[in-house]
Amino acid sequence: MTDTSVPTPDPAAGEQVRADDRAHVFHSWSAQAQIDPLPIAGAQGSWFWDYDGNRYLDLGSQLVNANAGHGHPAIVDAICEQARILPTIAPSFANDKRGELARLIAERAPGDLNKVFFTNAGAEANEHAIRMARVATGRSTVLAMYRSYHGASGTTIGLTGDPRRWRAEPTGNDVARFFGPYPFRSPWNTDSIEAEGVAALNHLRQVVELQGPATIAAIIIETVIGTNGVIVPPPGYLAGVRALCDEYGIVYIADEVMVGFGRLGEWFGVNAFDVTPDLITFAKGVNSGYVPLGGVVIGSRIADHFADTPYPGGLTYSGHPLACAAGVASIRAFEADGVIDRVRTTGGDLIRPTLEKIADNHPSVGEIRGMGFFWAIELVRDSATREGLVPFNASGAAAAPMTELVGAFKERGVWPFTHFNRIHLAPPLVTSDDDLTHAMGVLDEVLDLADRHVV
Amino acid sequence: MTDTSVPTPDPAAGEQVRADDRAHVFHSWSAQAQIDPLPIAGAQGSWFWDYDGNRYLDLGSQLVNANAGHGHPAIVDAICEQARILPTIAPSFANDKRGELARLIAERAPGDLNKVFFTNAGAEANEHAIRMARVATGRSTVLAMYRSYHGASGTTIGLTGDPRRWRAEPTGNDVARFFGPYPFRSPWNTDSIEAEGVAALNHLRQVVELQGPATIAAIIIETVIGTNGVIVPPPGYLAGVRALCDEYGIVYIADEVMVGFGRLGEWFGVNAFDVTPDLITFAKGVNSGYVPLGGVVIGSRIADHFADTPYPGGLTYSGHPLACAAGVASIRAFEADGVIDRVRTTGGDLIRPTLEKIADNHPSVGEIRGMGFFWAIELVRDSATREGLVPFNASGAAAAPMTELVGAFKERGVWPFTHFNRIHLAPPLVTSDDDLTHAMGVLDEVLDLADRHVV
Ligand SMILES: Cc1ncc(COP(=O)(O)O)c(C=O)c1O
Ligand SMILES: Cc1ncc(COP(=O)(O)O)c(C=O)c1O
Repeated sequence: MTDTSVPTPDPAAGEQVRADDRAHVFHSWSAQAQIDPLPIAGAQGSWFWDYDGNRYLDLGSQLVNANAGHGHPAIVDAICEQARILPTIAPSFANDKRGELARLIAERAPGDLNKVFFTNAGAEANEHAIRMARVATGRSTVLAMYRSYHGASGTTIGLTGDPRRWRAEPTGNDVARFFGPYPFRSPWNTDSIEAEGVAALNHLRQVVELQGPATIAAIIIETVIGTNGVIVPPPGYLAGVRALCDEYGIVYIADEVMVGFGRLGEWFGVNAFDVTPDLITFAKGVNSGYVPLGGVVIGSRIADHFADTPYPGGLTYSGHPLACAAGVASIRAFEADGVIDRVRTTGGDLIRPTLEKIADNHPSVGEIRGMGFFWAIELVRDSATREGLVPFNASGAAAAPMTELVGAFKERGVWPFTHFNRIHLAPPLVTSDDDLTHAMGVLDEVLDLADRHVV
Repeated sequence: MTDTSVPTPDPAAGEQVRADDRAHVFHSWSAQAQIDPLPIAGAQGSWFWDYDGNRYLDLGSQLVNANAGHGHPAIVDAICEQARILPTIAPSFANDKRGELARLIAERAPGDLNKVFFTNAGAEANEHAIRMARVATGRSTVLAMYRSYHGASGTTIGLTGDPRRWRAEPTGNDVARFFGPYPFRSPWNTDSIEAEGVAALNHLRQVVELQGPATIAAIIIETVIGTNGVIVPPPGYLAGVRALCDEYGIVYIADEVMVGFGRLGEWFGVNAFDVTPDLITFAKGVNSGYVPLGGVVIGSRIADHFADTPYPGGLTYSGHPLACAAGVASIRAFEADGVIDRVRTTGGDLIRPTLEKIADNHPSVGEIRGMGFFWAIELVRDSATREGLVPFNASGAAAAPMTELVGAFKERGVWPFTHFNRIHLAPPLVTSDDDLTHAMGVLDEVLDLADRHVV
């Protein structure tokens, strides 16, 4: 339901928040003197608001983490309760919430993925998944995609295949890169989704064979590519990856930091594609980020390796009780409210047809794609050449057409998630049909601005 | 005050916790089939308890993170309150608690360390500090000590100079290693603390000069070495490091993940040694780990570099409001209760003299050392040769004399922090004089067992 009530504004308080921020907070991915972060006063459900009385529909669930929306009472209550009982305990002990969450996750993960190593968030989950694969196989190389994001710690930024890596990559991380399937901009000029899947598998096989199969510890793949485009794998692609990994003893790591826990209308994204990786990494949606939490779900191949061989890794807050209690509450609430099923059906029955209609009306829309509550609208200047509305990795003046769109969204009370020449639709999984329809209506409006740039 | 009341036991509940844990939780640093983690039911102040009615005095503050002890009401209330207001918001926004905590930290940090980049915990703090140093200097090599621990992500385990690195180090992390001062086991056979400081500085200068000063991005040092021995730097050593870094344009990173926020009787450990690093990393004590939090305090050299150049790094939960609210509450509570001053004076007036007396009575005590609420009792088999009570990095049968001590502590209701041939005393900073005296009395008792191994 679209709640249009405006919280009491308090601009003076907002200015104090801004002053502290500008004086003392160093922000991610930013030139610190060139930003002016908006102070946020509060949030509820799919909406958040600033100190000046402006409300915004959270079209990106923050960084695609607030799957349960904001202020979810069951999760908030669980945090309060656990804070009073036992917020933290060292990883060497056993704890009820830690064990319960591990069990709930294992029950929802496919196949033999039955153990959970908890971390604080996504980058660390991938750090440890890579460690497990390297130590268990005795091999070093990891294959990772172009157009991927796996985190910003040393190992994970090295895996990342988007421009965020360019200035940050550490020396000597043993990563080789391949192309994933991307039907709309096929690296192999295929002309169907099926052909793209086949070409991508052939390509990956050649990379594996020429790189040296016996040197490859792992292949890491976002089940649906997230920030780099909401790219859904063609039918059979992930199953082909699984088969290739089996053939050469390579560990298949599914990075589900962004797509796990309901985003795709499944507890785990791989469930939609009927594959069982050796390791699944998660974070974000596991507890909507109310308390930092991530982890690795571990299949028996890796678990068996570390049954009698110590795992050489750890962290102070592995299996943090407060974070795990929030995860338990979130999973139980999603279950009780049928959230996962609704995401799947609403994605197919409401979002897809509405976006398709919008695409028909706007020459700037090159493609819409996605599933569940995870969609990309890819914008072009030229529908024949598919040249992007703005260039790859554009900033400043070159990105103006997108900056203009973002402004138009915000003016209309919708906070969009955009990346390069794309708008992503990834609202909280509790967003009402009315709010979804409202957001897509705003999208329809603001796309008129994009259309003007079409040649 | 020694609280000897026993919480109501519930062994059946404990068995359920154990069952979930054994079936589904993958633990840090462990051979998974060879461990039997004790289920913990609750904790208050300096004590925690299991499901069988056993209470333990928390001599290690878990992993030296629970500086405020357990169940601190001001921190618990702040968590509850913030959970209801706004547990999480993306790093690109400004948030009141994030800004307030950054300001409180900057006010307590030395010199020009005025900006804070928040992370989820300690390893990530060091990851980003190293990134900042490498990008800002355009150099790659990092100098790190033997006998150090900096975390278990790819970059940080590569920095780590203890056996935890041996099986985990990734390929190609550009780290060169040096020896820090360690008067009790001098690498240079010095015979006084002062001479050790001088020798260590000479050594470090030679390492820098032969490694190539213009290739060195940073030197990272735990202000007081933590897990690897509670080794306090000799007078002048850290000032000498600072001067050497200045001479060659090297970034001085102080890792205060374990010693920051009161452990040494100072907000930051470097304040006790009158030096100003370029970067200080922190975690643990900032909010006692009630919510995962860490970060980097940034001096103007690095902050200025990233004023108009984007910092190439970030994370979903940077400046997490729930974690920051816990930090604000903890700092304000420590301030209101005079915790920092009490730690400093109690360390000098109660702990040091008591441990000195104990050392005099036990031939197995080779040395006691420390400050504030951070002490090591280093045990030897032979006071002439200083051969350790157990060998370096011993496990299994070779570690039996230490295992026996640990068991004796637990039988007496004290949960010790031990490492190799050392017992560390690092209780919550709110531990009463009575409980401290009680713990040291137990230490005195159990050291009789160690004495039997002395030749
Ligand atoms: C697919 C994927 N992996 C890993 C990460 C890193 O997670 P975090 O920012 O929690 O470290 C992200 C974050 O956006 C992600 O989208
Ligand atoms: C000095 C030091 N640095 C870094 C770390 C790593 O912190 P975390 O376990 O929170 O990643 C630790 C943890 O014990 C530490 O003691």
